[in-house]
Amino acid sequence: MERCGAPEEVIRVEQVGEPGAPGPHEALVELVASPIHPADLLTIMGMYAGDPGPLPKVPGKEGLGEVLAAGNLVKHLKPGDLVPVLLPGDGVWQERHLLPAETLVALPPGGDLRQYAMAIANPATALLMLRAVVPLKMGEWVIQNAANSSVGQYLVQLAGKAGIRTVNVVRREGLAEKLHHLGADVVLVDGPDLPPRVGRATGGAAILLAIDAVAGEAAARLAACLAPGGTLLNYGMMSLKNVQVSPAHLIGNRIVVRGFWLPPVMAELGADGRAKVFGELISLVASGVLKAEVEATYPLDRVKEALAHAARGERGGKVLLVR
Amino acid sequence: MERCGAPEEVIRVEQVGEPGAPGPHEALVELVASPIHPADLLTIMGMYAGDPGPLPKVPGKEGLGEVLAAGNLVKHLKPGDLVPVLLPGDGVWQERHLLPAETLVALPPGGDLRQYAMAIANPATALLMLRAVVPLKMGEWVIQNAANSSVGQYLVQLAGKAGIRTVNVVRREGLAEKLHHLGADVVLVDGPDLPPRVGRATGGAAILLAIDAVAGEAAARLAACLAPGGTLLNYGMMSLKNVQVSPAHLIGNRIVVRGFWLPPVMAELGADGRAKVFGELISLVASGVLKAEVEATYPLDRVKEALAHAARGERGGKVLLVR
Repeated sequence: MERCGAPEEVIRVEQVGEPGAPGPHEALVELVASPIHPADLLTIMGMYAGDPGPLPKVPGKEGLGEVLAAGNLVKHLKPGDLVPVLLPGDGVWQERHLLPAETLVALPPGGDLRQYAMAIANPATALLMLRAVVPLKMGEWVIQNAANSSVGQYLVQLAGKAGIRTVNVVRREGLAEKLHHLGADVVLVDGPDLPPRVGRATGGAAILLAIDAVAGEAAARLAACLAPGGTLLNYGMMSLKNVQVSPAHLIGNRIVVRGFWLPPVMAELGADGRAKVFGELISLVASGVLKAEVEATYPLDRVKEALAHAARGERGGKVLLVR
Repeated sequence: MERCGAPEEVIRVEQVGEPGAPGPHEALVELVASPIHPADLLTIMGMYAGDPGPLPKVPGKEGLGEVLAAGNLVKHLKPGDLVPVLLPGDGVWQERHLLPAETLVALPPGGDLRQYAMAIANPATALLMLRAVVPLKMGEWVIQNAANSSVGQYLVQLAGKAGIRTVNVVRREGLAEKLHHLGADVVLVDGPDLPPRVGRATGGAAILLAIDAVAGEAAARLAACLAPGGTLLNYGMMSLKNVQVSPAHLIGNRIVVRGFWLPPVMAELGADGRAKVFGELISLVASGVLKAEVEATYPLDRVKEALAHAARGERGGKVLLVR
């Protein structure tokens, strides 16, 4: 991308030279697959939380790589190993990467390549939203909207494993069966009467955490479902609108509104904490317990089509760039 | 009020009997003056944070009373004493009250009666918003909108006394001189370019507390003026809209949004803490250091006119009901 703007205008595919052989502490990694996250689209449009950094740049926050060659002092990687590619400040969407080997960890062989390609960013967001802000205990409730998104589906699965009960708000009919199959306790279509329907569906249970990826009035409806003292945690803006919340809920119910952004939460965890989270998630993805849907795959040179597809609503899963 | 609704429809003046002589531990108090707060209007309209409680009821949250008679076991009050009238669950707007004497404290004689009538609710809100949520130190900055409201003016005066610097956002020209006279450091008219103008006016100072009484997009503009980790504290909804805040600020700047409501904060303070706050404020009001403007006074039997006046925007001060 040359500048921030509409993806079809600012993204182009460029042929560059091969990166050359890895230095003694490096690995040459080929990109196998990379999801197009909403955060990628927002970055390209210039609407992402973080500074886009110097431009032009290569977008892409997360992917799966295959080690093609490792430097002669690298002991823990060999050609053919699969590694998550997570770069500071984007840059994943290129065919080959020369990377410091110390940043790479080989994944267990035999895992689903597409699931591996998206094993960190969204699952870690879901996991840490359940843990890092309002730690929920077994039997307690969380409500989320955009429940059919990848983060939403990971959250259903991770909450289910932890015994946390979920109210899942979606924007259209026909998703309940799928989400119940993943472990959802309650699935409701959003609407102005959401709060009383949530109350009936949960038997009036106190909900202390609401997770919002939509913003706009949908956020206000989630906040209206919270028990006094509850937290509305926003991590996305699918509506492209401001988060809204009623002063009556802020003032009368002592609702707190916060944002969740993975990079600083990961930084706060420290290296050991991060390694633990990665290990936990990789193990769940490798064994097929934790997964998200894929709607389509595109080769890297059709990235514009892929971005246009990813930007459409009502998808049935992630759009992935693949080699 | 018979029910919640438009003040001119649901409020009526009713003649009831005299309350009779005070019991041994009671005082008979005549209402001298009572402000019409925005919270009173919201209560009547059914939009206030707290439950309106059983209806019909007498509205009114705060006033100044004069002791007409005290029970024979009451030692600390005598006829002619002035006392704040603060009732749990409204009820202030009636001519005479029989009250438990232990809830009443005589005010220093010689104070301005109209200032005494509004010496607690708004000043305590301003004081505790500066202290209870994000405690600010001398030299630090706070930004507030509705700065020309009574709470806004009290906040300017109390911040000035504490050495806290204030950015004051108003909705029309012509208020700067008055607010500077009260101690305001910066006065700006609200608008879409508010954040850069605030940055220029403060020399780019980090602002960690934004106090919002307007809600709607005005809240989002205040949040955009906050330094990373700052708090947007909402205590009113003059726009009658939801509080708005950009997900980019929640997520990227770790802005936290909370509400401020005096009753639970006062309850948390405990009796000693409350007595200290009351004493501090009464002393400032009695000495004329802390004051708010009065635009008009109406006798209690013209309460409908008074409410209509209080509901108008662009007032120059409080509307008071007086005996």
